[in-house]
Amino acid sequence: MTEVRIAGVGLTRFGRHPDRTGRDLFAEAALRAFEDAEVPRADVEGLNYGNFIGALAEGQGHQAPLMAEAAGLRCPATRYEEACASAGVAVREAVRTVRSGEADVVLAGGMERMTHVDTPTTTRGLATAADDLFEVRSGVTFPGAYALMARAYFDAFGGDRTDLAHIASKNHANAVDNEYAQYRREITVEEALDSPPVATPLHLFDACPITDGASAVVIVSEAYAEEHGLDAPVAVTGTGQGTDRMALGDRESLTETPAARDAATAAYEEAGIGPEDVDCAEVHDCFTIAEVLAIESLGFAAPGEGIRAAREGFTTADGDLPVNLSGGLKAKGHPVGATGAAQIAELVRLLRGDHPNSEHVDDATTAIAHNAGGTVASAVVHVLEVAE
Amino acid sequence: MTEVRIAGVGLTRFGRHPDRTGRDLFAEAALRAFEDAEVPRADVEGLNYGNFIGALAEGQGHQAPLMAEAAGLRCPATRYEEACASAGVAVREAVRTVRSGEADVVLAGGMERMTHVDTPTTTRGLATAADDLFEVRSGVTFPGAYALMARAYFDAFGGDRTDLAHIASKNHANAVDNEYAQYRREITVEEALDSPPVATPLHLFDACPITDGASAVVIVSEAYAEEHGLDAPVAVTGTGQGTDRMALGDRESLTETPAARDAATAAYEEAGIGPEDVDCAEVHDCFTIAEVLAIESLGFAAPGEGIRAAREGFTTADGDLPVNLSGGLKAKGHPVGATGAAQIAELVRLLRGDHPNSEHVDDATTAIAHNAGGTVASAVVHVLEVAE
Repeated sequence: MTEVRIAGVGLTRFGRHPDRTGRDLFAEAALRAFEDAEVPRADVEGLNYGNFIGALAEGQGHQAPLMAEAAGLRCPATRYEEACASAGVAVREAVRTVRSGEADVVLAGGMERMTHVDTPTTTRGLATAADDLFEVRSGVTFPGAYALMARAYFDAFGGDRTDLAHIASKNHANAVDNEYAQYRREITVEEALDSPPVATPLHLFDACPITDGASAVVIVSEAYAEEHGLDAPVAVTGTGQGTDRMALGDRESLTETPAARDAATAAYEEAGIGPEDVDCAEVHDCFTIAEVLAIESLGFAAPGEGIRAAREGFTTADGDLPVNLSGGLKAKGHPVGATGAAQIAELVRLLRGDHPNSEHVDDATTAIAHNAGGTVASAVVHVLEVAE
Repeated sequence: MTEVRIAGVGLTRFGRHPDRTGRDLFAEAALRAFEDAEVPRADVEGLNYGNFIGALAEGQGHQAPLMAEAAGLRCPATRYEEACASAGVAVREAVRTVRSGEADVVLAGGMERMTHVDTPTTTRGLATAADDLFEVRSGVTFPGAYALMARAYFDAFGGDRTDLAHIASKNHANAVDNEYAQYRREITVEEALDSPPVATPLHLFDACPITDGASAVVIVSEAYAEEHGLDAPVAVTGTGQGTDRMALGDRESLTETPAARDAATAAYEEAGIGPEDVDCAEVHDCFTIAEVLAIESLGFAAPGEGIRAAREGFTTADGDLPVNLSGGLKAKGHPVGATGAAQIAELVRLLRGDHPNSEHVDDATTAIAHNAGGTVASAVVHVLEVAE
């Protein structure tokens, strides 16, 4: 089986880009990735592109060929849509394509523009990630859905809003030095607690923002990297994907995310490692409670114990397992269709030692990315390792 | 490399299904495919699902996990969106996954519901397959775009509306006996000519209808088929995908579809065959002119000669190369996100000899499917062969 390397990564700044088109944003991320990789565009054999609500927010479906053109590519181009896990799936399929020998170079990434439309449109757009017939029509939006999960968690295991506020505060602190982050300012636990309620027990600072941005990752075979003398020290050694029932009401538990657990199990198995081998993680913290469920599903905390991880310092920048050193979705921002590949890009920078927060993971060799769709009806997990 | 077989296919009737949900339609297609394949659902390792305008027409994105649930599957599920080529891409990636050894059984298919929304919504939804900034805002809709291509073709090579009317008449004749077709009635060339104009030179009977429907194909490795004693005589021996510039105004020619040509070249090369080896084809005739461009891009007619193929009997049911024996998009119907896999399903039935029109291709061993996105900014081509 062909080994898979990441030759380069590119990101736009995450935030508000009212004056830029989607193709402009993606072209910037792709340009940076190609410059970072030192791979010529002519060698690219496929574009795997993630986008979620482009048809609603921009009147633009069929974005893959458009983005290939914007990125200067002439190759098969495919859009993946898996709600907030769209780019994670795009990366996964690129990894599998390169691993299979079908291609030596694939560009994977994503883009979302969300801040230019009004809030009802954004809310309705994001709600298309939930079950329209059995959730959305009953009034469930995403803050509400994750609030239900937080309540169920508190009921089952204890924990409180202060635990969640520590997660928000941690992720904001991590974002301060990240040049691509939407919110580069610290918030205190008290500020998070005092922010206005959105869907009890979740308050404003428990939620990630609405964000524009793009991401791109150049995925190559080890053979291609060697042949071209590329500096591509990070390998993708495991990929996994999981699926769960869509509607919360159809699930056996609101405090577990089996799609993520299945994805993690598969990714760990492929990589031949376990949670104990991981040095840092980027997880899908669309809400603070989501980070709790994520680290439990990845095996970093037992059920009911993830809630204390940030408060007790386990997942802080200088903790045993730094989580979301990028700032996470919470502070770095969440351009939905771009997020999965952006997580990979941040981990690659961290492992290569050229991330502003690399100092916190000096000897790190192994990282994991967790990207979830909707209320984790789908999930994608990747294991990255510094190659020998 | 693992050989890929199609173990079973399933379709709903194409047409109007105002009383059924999307998940209901897809569940029916999947049920039929599993019954046809005699493959247990527990063996399925992935669902590749195509859908185009679900977020706009149904308020439902993130459909892949929903459809996995509806089909009784618990496995990774991914949505592919490539406008009208969505299911073609879903099939292609399933073929590549099985071929690579990553999985032995993948279900590929798609679904679209379009008839329940009003015409402006459908038209706007379909227009998201074109370039929103440089085409749609200038008033280009799909009938208009294909009318421009028809005009350019007539100018370059000659041909007239009567040539196109023969294509419509042929495809309607083919649909009469197809139990899944939307329009099971013949139309004469005169009726086609006399139908009301839509976008000159295209009239109503040059266009495919608006359609609800679903399709599913069970794709397995040859080893799995043998081990389980499956009756799976049809192999996928070639797959190709191509991409072109999105906006018609950015292309070098309006009378060529290089995305389809590239896809066909790749598919033929993988299969080790050429156009002369093909016994029958399903091509993407969203408009009659599209069938002309399709057969030229597949190498069945030289540039400028495809226009006469139906009129001269080359592509009719008893011609040298029957095209769209299913009725095509034109008469069978075009539930956009389902079409690519439906074409494969029809070809499998034709090659196995259990299609109502199999009598027209008695000794057929080789077939080709051509599925296009938008104005062929993307295209997917598959070669199917009866295995030895």
